[in-house]
Formats: sequence, structure tokens, C-alpha cells
Amino acid sequence: MTAALPVSFDEVREAAARLTGVAHRTPVLTSRTLNALTGAEVFVKCENFQRVGAFKFRGAYNAVARLSAGQRARGVVAYSSGNHAQATALAARELGTTAVIVMPADAPRSKAEATAGYGAEIVTYDRYTQDRAALAESLAAERGLALVAPYDHPDVIAGQGTAALELLEETGALDALVVPVGGGGLIAGSAIAATALHPGIRVVGVEPEAGDDTRRSLESGRRITVPVPRTIADGQAVATPGALTFPVNQRLVDAVTLVSDDEIVEAMRFAFERLKIVLEPSGATGLAALLNGRLGAPARRIGVIASGGNIDARRFAELVGA
Amino acid sequence: MTAALPVSFDEVREAAARLTGVAHRTPVLTSRTLNALTGAEVFVKCENFQRVGAFKFRGAYNAVARLSAGQRARGVVAYSSGNHAQATALAARELGTTAVIVMPADAPRSKAEATAGYGAEIVTYDRYTQDRAALAESLAAERGLALVAPYDHPDVIAGQGTAALELLEETGALDALVVPVGGGGLIAGSAIAATALHPGIRVVGVEPEAGDDTRRSLESGRRITVPVPRTIADGQAVATPGALTFPVNQRLVDAVTLVSDDEIVEAMRFAFERLKIVLEPSGATGLAALLNGRLGAPARRIGVIASGGNIDARRFAELVGA
Repeated sequence: MTAALPVSFDEVREAAARLTGVAHRTPVLTSRTLNALTGAEVFVKCENFQRVGAFKFRGAYNAVARLSAGQRARGVVAYSSGNHAQATALAARELGTTAVIVMPADAPRSKAEATAGYGAEIVTYDRYTQDRAALAESLAAERGLALVAPYDHPDVIAGQGTAALELLEETGALDALVVPVGGGGLIAGSAIAATALHPGIRVVGVEPEAGDDTRRSLESGRRITVPVPRTIADGQAVATPGALTFPVNQRLVDAVTLVSDDEIVEAMRFAFERLKIVLEPSGATGLAALLNGRLGAPARRIGVIASGGNIDARRFAELVGA
Repeated sequence: MTAALPVSFDEVREAAARLTGVAHRTPVLTSRTLNALTGAEVFVKCENFQRVGAFKFRGAYNAVARLSAGQRARGVVAYSSGNHAQATALAARELGTTAVIVMPADAPRSKAEATAGYGAEIVTYDRYTQDRAALAESLAAERGLALVAPYDHPDVIAGQGTAALELLEETGALDALVVPVGGGGLIAGSAIAATALHPGIRVVGVEPEAGDDTRRSLESGRRITVPVPRTIADGQAVATPGALTFPVNQRLVDAVTLVSDDEIVEAMRFAFERLKIVLEPSGATGLAALLNGRLGAPARRIGVIASGGNIDARRFAELVGA
């Protein structure tokens, strides 16, 4: 007998109901070229078209929506230099509460501005000397704020799972589902939804080579911490799997595969030139795994989550234009 | 009493039936940011997601599909260094006939390869000394091929009009429709469909500043030839309006506005960073007109055709990355 998972499929379905009319039901793209190259039928779930440009809005909105009225009156806090910051700021605004976002002092100005543009208060920290989670927790305690953790949070995991739920509602049964892995929230939620709908589906995670903490952790059966990953896939530069996400992924994920930064850049170029869509490095890792035949088992019908598209044109040019 | 147009709305509808299940019914994107910037509700018809990456497939397929069985046994010929080449090659392959494509000897290798990849025979010419239309016509005469002209062809015009037809089916009534103008086929077909469905709609064409032949021609009431345009919008580098398209546009187009190359690059960047889609320069001119307030009259609900997305990542980096 196995312990219950921290998030149920019903909770993913409830999150989907909560997100209806608020999050975008993002399109699923297909490409004859991609099918020909992979020898499979591939369905790309385009979370780059999600609000704030990434799947993160799903989990953040679901978590803020689940708060009590009293908690919403006090507000929320999150730490992120990336998409979760904007997602939480926008979710708070949409739900009539306030957000404090803890960001490194040297975060890209465009990201800080976008987050502030959604009405959030930005609190900066020095990424070399301060612990952002501790800072967020102390802000939460001092001001009575609810912490919206980026992945180790059941409502966040349930919200992220709606991406796979929507994809499978549109495609029907798939042989494999390929999902980028950072802290593990997207793949945990997606695996809960996918395996509930189609118990035989193969769920494959993708990490950048430099950030293979989840792969190593799954191999050794416990959470391993790797050195802070140096990779262009900044959304996946996580050093250790989540305490809540890891046991889910241990149970439901069949394999985690790795892609190099060069392979990620080539997948971004492929998405640009062939699919005509913009993917940030982390958003292209699933596609990179597919294009390089890293699924580890044959699959005829494959879903892949393209998790985000937040990259400015100049950075894209640096990475892909050379 | 006015003379009948060379293409009727019924012919656009027949083209739509012919294209069903063959061409993509491309998505219509909306963006809160774009709405806020323009003060309107904007609907972007994404022909960058069309087969071969541009609306051109619609017209080429419709024209080849309309040929007799005998003509299809002999094959077709087209001249183009751009999207019409690939569109005609693919349409011919899909319909079981052969295509000869007349291309400049110095066309980008990627375009020649893509066209050959669809099974077409490439015939090159020297763009400084030879007349491509004359060469295509002599090939047509010698080999008994049907010429699929890029815009001066009723079936091509009818096919292109299906883009606006689909857009309006999805959005309902619009106050304005914004369409890029090269030879005038896309806007002629679109104007036929749009004004038939919604007689009060304002149809606005967009040309690059350097290629303002249609604007000048409409002003002077006759087809004007301008010097060969030097613009990044290569799909609109046309020196004179079509003989068939011009009278349609004279009747149905309310205004033609101009955008600079810099404005086009900014629109490409906006599409990339905010809409997360890839547009080639010509494909971004409608968006550029909107972002720069060039519609010439207030409009609350606006459709814009993003006509194509064929640009390689390196060229995009050169244009936008600097």
C-alpha cells in the first residue's frame, strides 16, 4: 500500500475550473516537419502563449484563489527572479490582493519592471549573501503574508497540472508526455493529471545537463543537491528537487533525460524557423529532447509542454543569431 | 452602374471549401498589451502559421486545384524568389502535378532548397539581365504549363481572400481590417470577402515606405510604377500594382498607409516579445501600422493579417538584435 499523493487528480480538475476564463486555454500546435523528424505524431502545448508568457500563471493563480478572504486581505509574498514573480503579481492583482515579490537586486530590469507593472511591491536581496526563501519567510511572518512557493505548494502543483489536462483533453490518449523539470512542480502536476487519465502513459522529464538534480535524485532514491547549475535554461537552474514535488515525481515519472545548452539553442531555432513560435531556453528543453531522440522508449503519439516564451529579442539574437 | 469585379465573394467561399482540411485554419491571437497600446480590440490572423509559413499557400492551392485534369497532367509554372515559390511547389505536390519555379540565380539557398524539397524543378535566371515573367511565360508556352501568377490571377485572389473570410467568421463584425499590400492579391481577396460580409468595414492597406506604388496609384487613379523598392519587407518589394488587383483595390480599399523599415523591425520585436510569434518583415507591416496609429480613422474592433513568418533566426538577429 502506497501513501496518498499530496495532490489528487480531483484537485487538478478543481484548479482547471478555477482557471477557466482567467488563464488562456493555450493552443496545441502540430508540425508536419516535426512529425517527419521524430517519426511520431507530436503535439506541442504552447504555454509560451499563456498569460505572463509561461505556465507559471496557472499555479500562482490557483494558489492565490484558494486563500481565505482574510488572507487575501493581508496579501501574498513570493520569491522569484523569473516567471513565477510576474505570475504571482498578476494573480494577486486579478484576485484583488497585494503581492510582495522578493527578487535579486541584479535581476534584469525588464523583469522587475514587468512585475512592478502588475502592482507588486518588489523587495530586493543580494543573491551572494542572502537567502531569498528565508527573507520571504520572514516577510510572511512579519506582515502576515501567505507564501506562494514556486513549486513546493500543493495548490501550485495542482494549477500547473492543468496544462497537461488541457493537452490531453484535446489530443486524447498519448503514448508519452515530455515535460521540462526545474523544481518539479509542472511535471508533478502534469504527471498526476496524465496518469489519472491514461495510466499507461510514459511521463518523461527533461533537465539541462548542468542541472540534473532530479535525474540524480531519482536514480539514488533521495533528494540530491547539485552545485548551482550554469545553464542558459534559467527557469531550470534549480539545485535540488522540491520536498513536495520529489515524492510525486518518484512515483509517477518514468524517466528524466538531459539536454545540452547547444541542443536547447537548436530547439529554440527550430521553434522559431519551423513552428514560428518564440520559446525561452527552459521552454525549449522538451522539444530539444524530442529532436535528439532522448525519450528512451518508442512512442507514436507524443505530447510536449513548451513551458514558456519569455526571452527578449536581443538575448535571442545573442544565443541563436551567431 | 459599376463593372463586375473579376472575383466574386462566391468564388472566395468556393476557395474556402477547396482549402478545408488542406490549408491550416490559422489561429486568431489577441493580446491585452496590444489592446492597451492601441485603445482598440485587435485580432491578429496568424498566417505565419499557414503551410509554407505564409498566406500564399491559399491562393496557389486554389489556383492549381481549379486546373483541368489535362492541365494538371502537364504541370504548372510560377516565378518567385519568396513564399509564392514554396506555396506553388507544395500545392502542385499535394494535387499530384509538377511545378517549375523560376527563381533568381542568387536567391537564398534555403528558399531554393525548400522549394526543391517539395519536388519542384528550379529554373534560375539572372535578375539583372532577364525578365522573370517573360521567362515563365516562354516556359509555359514551350512546355504547355499553366502559369500560376503570384497575384494577377482570379483564383489566386479568391484563395487569398479566405484569410479574411476565416478571420471574420471567428470575430464577427469588425470596424477595420488591416492588410499588407505587395502585388495586391491578399488585400483584393480580403476586401472582397470583408466588404461582402460587412459592407461598412474600413479596409486599410499597408505598404513599406519605399514601395508605395499602390498608395500612389490609388491617389492618381491609375497604375504607377515606382523604382524597385529598397526595403526589408521583401514580400512587398513590388514596383507596380497588379492589372487585375488594382481595379479591385481601387473600388474596395479605403486607404493605404505607409510604414518605415524601422517601424517594421519594432513590430517584429513586439510580435516576438509580447505575442511570442515570429513574423517576417512583410508579415509585420500591418502590426506596425497599428502600433503607430496609422489607420486614419477611429476603429474599436480591428482585424490585422499577419501575413507570414519566413525569416531565419540569423536574419532576425541581424535586424532586431542590434
